[in-house]
Amino acid sequence: MLSLLELAEALQAECQPRDSAHTTLLHRVGSARNADATSLVPQLAATVSSPGKPLLLVQQPRLAFAKAWRLLMDASNVPGVHPTAIVAASVELAEGVSIGPYAVLGEQVRIGKRTEIGAGCVLAEGVQVGEDCRLFPRVVVYAGVQLRDRVVVHAGCVLGSDGFGYVRDAETGAYTLFPQQGTLTIEEDVEIGANTTIDRGALEETRIARGTKLDNLVHIGHNVRVGRNVVIAAQTGISGSSAVGDGAVLGGQVGIGEHAAVGEGVILGGGAGVLSKKKLRGAGKIFWGRPAQPLREYLKGLAAVARLTRKTKNQL
Amino acid sequence: MLSLLELAEALQAECQPRDSAHTTLLHRVGSARNADATSLVPQLAATVSSPGKPLLLVQQPRLAFAKAWRLLMDASNVPGVHPTAIVAASVELAEGVSIGPYAVLGEQVRIGKRTEIGAGCVLAEGVQVGEDCRLFPRVVVYAGVQLRDRVVVHAGCVLGSDGFGYVRDAETGAYTLFPQQGTLTIEEDVEIGANTTIDRGALEETRIARGTKLDNLVHIGHNVRVGRNVVIAAQTGISGSSAVGDGAVLGGQVGIGEHAAVGEGVILGGGAGVLSKKKLRGAGKIFWGRPAQPLREYLKGLAAVARLTRKTKNQL
Amino acid sequence: MLSLLELAEALQAECQPRDSAHTTLLHRVGSARNADATSLVPQLAATVSSPGKPLLLVQQPRLAFAKAWRLLMDASNVPGVHPTAIVAASVELAEGVSIGPYAVLGEQVRIGKRTEIGAGCVLAEGVQVGEDCRLFPRVVVYAGVQLRDRVVVHAGCVLGSDGFGYVRDAETGAYTLFPQQGTLTIEEDVEIGANTTIDRGALEETRIARGTKLDNLVHIGHNVRVGRNVVIAAQTGISGSSAVGDGAVLGGQVGIGEHAAVGEGVILGGGAGVLSKKKLRGAGKIFWGRPAQPLREYLKGLAAVARLTRKTKNQL
Repeated sequence: MLSLLELAEALQAECQPRDSAHTTLLHRVGSARNADATSLVPQLAATVSSPGKPLLLVQQPRLAFAKAWRLLMDASNVPGVHPTAIVAASVELAEGVSIGPYAVLGEQVRIGKRTEIGAGCVLAEGVQVGEDCRLFPRVVVYAGVQLRDRVVVHAGCVLGSDGFGYVRDAETGAYTLFPQQGTLTIEEDVEIGANTTIDRGALEETRIARGTKLDNLVHIGHNVRVGRNVVIAAQTGISGSSAVGDGAVLGGQVGIGEHAAVGEGVILGGGAGVLSKKKLRGAGKIFWGRPAQPLREYLKGLAAVARLTRKTKNQL
Repeated sequence: MLSLLELAEALQAECQPRDSAHTTLLHRVGSARNADATSLVPQLAATVSSPGKPLLLVQQPRLAFAKAWRLLMDASNVPGVHPTAIVAASVELAEGVSIGPYAVLGEQVRIGKRTEIGAGCVLAEGVQVGEDCRLFPRVVVYAGVQLRDRVVVHAGCVLGSDGFGYVRDAETGAYTLFPQQGTLTIEEDVEIGANTTIDRGALEETRIARGTKLDNLVHIGHNVRVGRNVVIAAQTGISGSSAVGDGAVLGGQVGIGEHAAVGEGVILGGGAGVLSKKKLRGAGKIFWGRPAQPLREYLKGLAAVARLTRKTKNQL
Repeated sequence: MLSLLELAEALQAECQPRDSAHTTLLHRVGSARNADATSLVPQLAATVSSPGKPLLLVQQPRLAFAKAWRLLMDASNVPGVHPTAIVAASVELAEGVSIGPYAVLGEQVRIGKRTEIGAGCVLAEGVQVGEDCRLFPRVVVYAGVQLRDRVVVHAGCVLGSDGFGYVRDAETGAYTLFPQQGTLTIEEDVEIGANTTIDRGALEETRIARGTKLDNLVHIGHNVRVGRNVVIAAQTGISGSSAVGDGAVLGGQVGIGEHAAVGEGVILGGGAGVLSKKKLRGAGKIFWGRPAQPLREYLKGLAAVARLTRKTKNQL
């Protein structure tokens, strides 16, 4: 049995950027996973062009491939603080940390082992970053925000900015910012796409729980709680004080109003809209539309309108 | 009667980040605002756990709380120009200004009293920023843009970029940028969320009028005019040459086409879409849907489709 | 016959920021383009207030105006590498290049003639930028991305970030990033709005073909192929592995699912949504709605619902 690292090296040795042969192979193993996997070995071996190559058989081939690749990637970091980085006197850097050029770290910032802070990142006072994190260039982290271990933040993200909560003066119509002095916690293994913004809590906390993945240009409002292993596709926005349960899957451009709750394992189709204070429940249940409805009902509504349209056409 | 600053200090003295006791108190006063407020004092006093504390009674308690907090926050700025900031020879800095590390200020830039320019901000030639403004890190302001007093701009914003106006060559199908040499003016007390983008005018001006608040990842196109005290939630986009009247409220992910007009005080629900050239009017009137309709009509449409869907269900 | 540069200078000499006289003139010529243009000269000459001015007659006046303006603008670049820019030893800079303050260029970066890299830009290892490009401040380009000639990238863009592709562990529910080691190619004359994000390919390539224009806050996922002379308005998102054909026009806030195909010349109205794997075809054909339908059918659907709503109103 090969280790994952050996698998990775074997794959890389064979894999050219445009050569998808190995993917094909893995895919075949993947699509046959409902069959008895071991019975497939001779069949697969026959389809591989050069029979001298090792044949890898794993339960979840795409997953093994992804994990193997990650092992190879992790070797890229070169520790050290670039001479142009501005690191306040009270900053604590663990061993193996890399701080890129023109990064700025405020007082009391703490960075865990082997973490990489990219060029031009700005970490305000009291920011804490765990071990084995990677912040790509030009990430801004506001004061007091906490990132745990193995967090990946892509370029241009803004973490911990003031939430959008205003008090309207009933006499003048002018707005005053409601205090936005809460915190933001990003738990372990969270990954955040480019130019995404996550606001800090107003009086409390915004929290993204472990293992959750956010795509590019996502917006997370103040006091929002996102559970574990949630997937949120690009340009989705979650308004203040809403909650998303563990394992939920949100398509792109989804919009969630304030104080709403998306239950554990709920799936929201791309562009779906959840009204303020609305609660959606049901693991594995798919909702779609604006306002979001159970998929079947939404599709029936679309079909009903289509029939109506056809009927009108016939009458004309 | 306590001054607002005394109120702020009293609140801060009592308030721990996770302690919401003071909020509870203020909220109670707030929800009773339709009653005779003074009659509530003995009742409120009885509910406060430590009767020795001062009891503050104001007409708009959330507003007072917000204003008091802001007074406290304003003390944070430490004046001075960081030695790594690049400040062109012709730049004019008023007293009390703070320029962060690695900020770049081009020729003829003018910064008003006590304004704070965060780390890594880039202000191109001729940018003018008023008094008591705060630009968080990594804001980019293109040449000639004007920000008036007390403007707050969160990290990653881009102000005054070229608008999206192209001329198509009828023969080749290729596009050429139409001149985007107008200006952008941000009036007093405007606040702008993280990674928001506002384009300059094409030949004329883009203008955000005083007191207006923009959330994160908002897009404002060229020549747009946004009135006073307008609230625009996250990920909303306003296309070129459209206008939004004073006091309007736009939910998140609203989309407004070109040359459209949203009247004074109009309220657009989250995800609403306004067609190009469309005019919506009526202070306090709520519109929703794509295309946006008066709320009642839109809800009736949803209900009608739902009935149709049910009917079909019964027929099956 | 005047050259375009002479035209540009003539226009600039007459044109004040708020003076739209020249636009009016050009517009009149433009709107008369279906008539015999030469027959309009005496008529136009009579309407111009100062008859001593030169009268310019071109086939596509807006296009001529735009091209003339561009010629004037192109003179702004001052070559040279700012002393604070960090340029790795193996970087190749062609003549006339300008590198702004605090820009960071990694190993093996290559920059073509007269290209301008703005303040605070970060170009990772192996990035190639062609001739006459302009990167506004704070653009981040990930390793190995290729930009061809005359590409314009506005402030805050992120090019070549990891795509959003994860493999779910069927046993634990945890996600692992699928390899995102492909490339990104931006062809000639592409222009990209502020804070837009474009992901690199997973195993293959993301490509934006020549002449295509992207507005602000657009998201392009991994492996996406966008054809030539495509126009994509603000806040539109294209999910992984989808394709958009030459000359297509996408309104703002359009959402396109994964593995979808938008054919050559297709027009998508603002906010339209294209389902995963869906193919839309027909040059000049307009689609609208979520899910996108041919415009006429979508409008009929809206009308049918409106009638239904009215009927209900009458019954009440």
